[in-house]
Amino acid sequence: MADSKKIAVIGFGNIGSGVVEALYEKNFTGLELVKVVDIDLERPRPVTLPTGYLSTDWQAVVNDPSIDIIVELIGGIEPAGSVQLQALRNGKDVVTANKMLLAQRGQEIFSLASELKRRVGFRASFVGCHALIHEFQQAGVSARQFRRIYAILNGTSNYILSTMTRDGTEFEVALKEAQAKGLAESDPSDDVEGMDTASKIRILLSLITNSYQKVAPFPIEGIRDVTPQDIQYADELGYSIKLVGVIEQSNGVFNVAVHPALVPQASLLGSLEGAYNGTELEDEYGVVSGLVAPGAGVRPTTDAIIKDLLDIAGGNPLPMPSSAEQLVLGNTEDAQRRYYLRFSALDQAGVLAQISGLFGKHDISIAAVIQKEAVSKDFVPLVMTTHLAREGNVQAALQEVDRLQVVRARTRVIRILNADT
Amino acid sequence: MADSKKIAVIGFGNIGSGVVEALYEKNFTGLELVKVVDIDLERPRPVTLPTGYLSTDWQAVVNDPSIDIIVELIGGIEPAGSVQLQALRNGKDVVTANKMLLAQRGQEIFSLASELKRRVGFRASFVGCHALIHEFQQAGVSARQFRRIYAILNGTSNYILSTMTRDGTEFEVALKEAQAKGLAESDPSDDVEGMDTASKIRILLSLITNSYQKVAPFPIEGIRDVTPQDIQYADELGYSIKLVGVIEQSNGVFNVAVHPALVPQASLLGSLEGAYNGTELEDEYGVVSGLVAPGAGVRPTTDAIIKDLLDIAGGNPLPMPSSAEQLVLGNTEDAQRRYYLRFSALDQAGVLAQISGLFGKHDISIAAVIQKEAVSKDFVPLVMTTHLAREGNVQAALQEVDRLQVVRARTRVIRILNADT
Repeated sequence: MADSKKIAVIGFGNIGSGVVEALYEKNFTGLELVKVVDIDLERPRPVTLPTGYLSTDWQAVVNDPSIDIIVELIGGIEPAGSVQLQALRNGKDVVTANKMLLAQRGQEIFSLASELKRRVGFRASFVGCHALIHEFQQAGVSARQFRRIYAILNGTSNYILSTMTRDGTEFEVALKEAQAKGLAESDPSDDVEGMDTASKIRILLSLITNSYQKVAPFPIEGIRDVTPQDIQYADELGYSIKLVGVIEQSNGVFNVAVHPALVPQASLLGSLEGAYNGTELEDEYGVVSGLVAPGAGVRPTTDAIIKDLLDIAGGNPLPMPSSAEQLVLGNTEDAQRRYYLRFSALDQAGVLAQISGLFGKHDISIAAVIQKEAVSKDFVPLVMTTHLAREGNVQAALQEVDRLQVVRARTRVIRILNADT
Repeated sequence: MADSKKIAVIGFGNIGSGVVEALYEKNFTGLELVKVVDIDLERPRPVTLPTGYLSTDWQAVVNDPSIDIIVELIGGIEPAGSVQLQALRNGKDVVTANKMLLAQRGQEIFSLASELKRRVGFRASFVGCHALIHEFQQAGVSARQFRRIYAILNGTSNYILSTMTRDGTEFEVALKEAQAKGLAESDPSDDVEGMDTASKIRILLSLITNSYQKVAPFPIEGIRDVTPQDIQYADELGYSIKLVGVIEQSNGVFNVAVHPALVPQASLLGSLEGAYNGTELEDEYGVVSGLVAPGAGVRPTTDAIIKDLLDIAGGNPLPMPSSAEQLVLGNTEDAQRRYYLRFSALDQAGVLAQISGLFGKHDISIAAVIQKEAVSKDFVPLVMTTHLAREGNVQAALQEVDRLQVVRARTRVIRILNADT
């Protein structure tokens, strides 16, 4: 196997075991597993390797000149970052599933790889959408631009929102169910507060713009504040509530955000249930494509890593951001969007007139109103949706609304994602 | 441009104009347009070429040894088939969007290409799903098998069914609307009778099994007989009615069919509206991926052709069936499926008992029943769905049901596609 690429896998956990098993037991042309590194070699694993393969010393392996490709599956920031950077400096290619590292230090890693003409395969860091994004990025050669990417990228949050929708339960109840099923971590913050989605959105943005420059911070909001009431009202209006990552582009200016949103039920994202990922992409001609795929799991992640390895070994194209161009983020206040608004108002005459008057003053046009009979003496459920409105105007109007004497609590605002607007 | 591939486009219609415009006006590394052939060179086109490019003589172009790649965009069977075969024999690669030709004569074309070590790029013949199928086929290197592909592959039929669902109209009314909007041909048979879907299913089957052997005939049923009543009952049961192509595999035995089906509304296919294509693929581990994309149009088709050309010029992998293995089709009678059944029964005591008695006798278990109050003296609307049942048993039971004195017309049978069964 003189022409084979010699591969070391660093990190022998769940995913590592899947990759090692695939490489060791199947005969991929051009791929030769030579080392597997982990700090713990005692733990039982689904695949048994001769001892010559195993090592606890990642430095020795990364500095071994006979190795061509390092598969970094440790996760987290360190020592994973040092593993990747040292491997690149030593002239090796890198394959990884580490989205947190790429989101935080992608600039350093990709710029070094570009400089040294090495390759970083990272399909596995966005398994739920790589088929669509790679396809589109390849289509970039025919000069297509994109208008927007709307994506559900966190299976845990989507599972929790699906459960809340199906059972009418509160967030905390649905979270406990997800934890009991092993679909949420004991500390679920990364998933439910939107950080995981934001990491993937950063990677997608890099890939689709070909720029590895870290973008400025963008708004990130999770699903802890989503209530069964909001889900119920959204349903009456024909929408599901989903945690979405959004990248919009207009004339080279980007709007990027992660937040819960009302999504039309009869759409790819709106009908996505459970722990799946879904991505919708609209190109400059208004052509929309969408992909639904598992966003995690040993099998899809292993497949993605093997594909990267085969592409590196075969000399095939492997998209990797290679430009240092700084992306320009738009002023959020100027964005034109649609909104769902739930007011906490007293049941008094003139409430609707006061609120809608303030909206008219700020040039916000109301699309729909749901006002039900009061459930208690001093509280009337009132929900409105707007037509496209400038975000700054909506914020200004709500500041005034929330100061009204008839309004008892902060108005709940959720963006409406509408493919048609 | 000594290293560029010299390209001739044969067929200068809508798609041809898109491809010629892209090749002529953009600078794709490695691609050089040298000839464009059409029998009619007078018609105005969106792109104007110097006269040296144009020819009416495809034979001269296909026999020109300086040309490397022939893009066949004539469509239909002849002369398109002769163009492709002659190009291959002359040592050229071929790129095409011609699904009808590949479905009918793919065996001849792909076997010749394999023998002569030439390449046939045909992404453009299944633009609505190539990203998903190529991705999966590439994953085939990691030895994944598939269990099933369910796909909506005909935009015209899907548009008509969407209209019937939205407006409650009859097939003929929705067809006329689609024709008025240019979304259905004046002779819509190919689209609405399932032939177009069947062509695409044949190509997908070739691609995913790597076999170019033509499979035996399989059942093809179109949407002419779908009624607003069936759509309404399906809706009450939580399903949409869609025209689907189905490929199922179990232990190397394939079940292939095209027919209308009840699809869960809250699924990728069930929520697909309008002229889009959608494909769901389940692998051997039960991992489901799905893609939604435009199934036709100048832009996506042109992009697919350019991708094929770039892959050929760049020496990248380009999946093409290369085996002569004969696929084994399963015995349809033994397939286990779920069914929707609408009976045309008289409003007499004991009808339900007679029908359900016959079902029990044939080992068919009933999942749901809708019996509404009679709309006229002698007719009672009666709809049933079954649990998984052997197709042969259902056919046998229905032969007996349709002979009952209380049954006035043939029972309407529509398969239920259920991802969970």
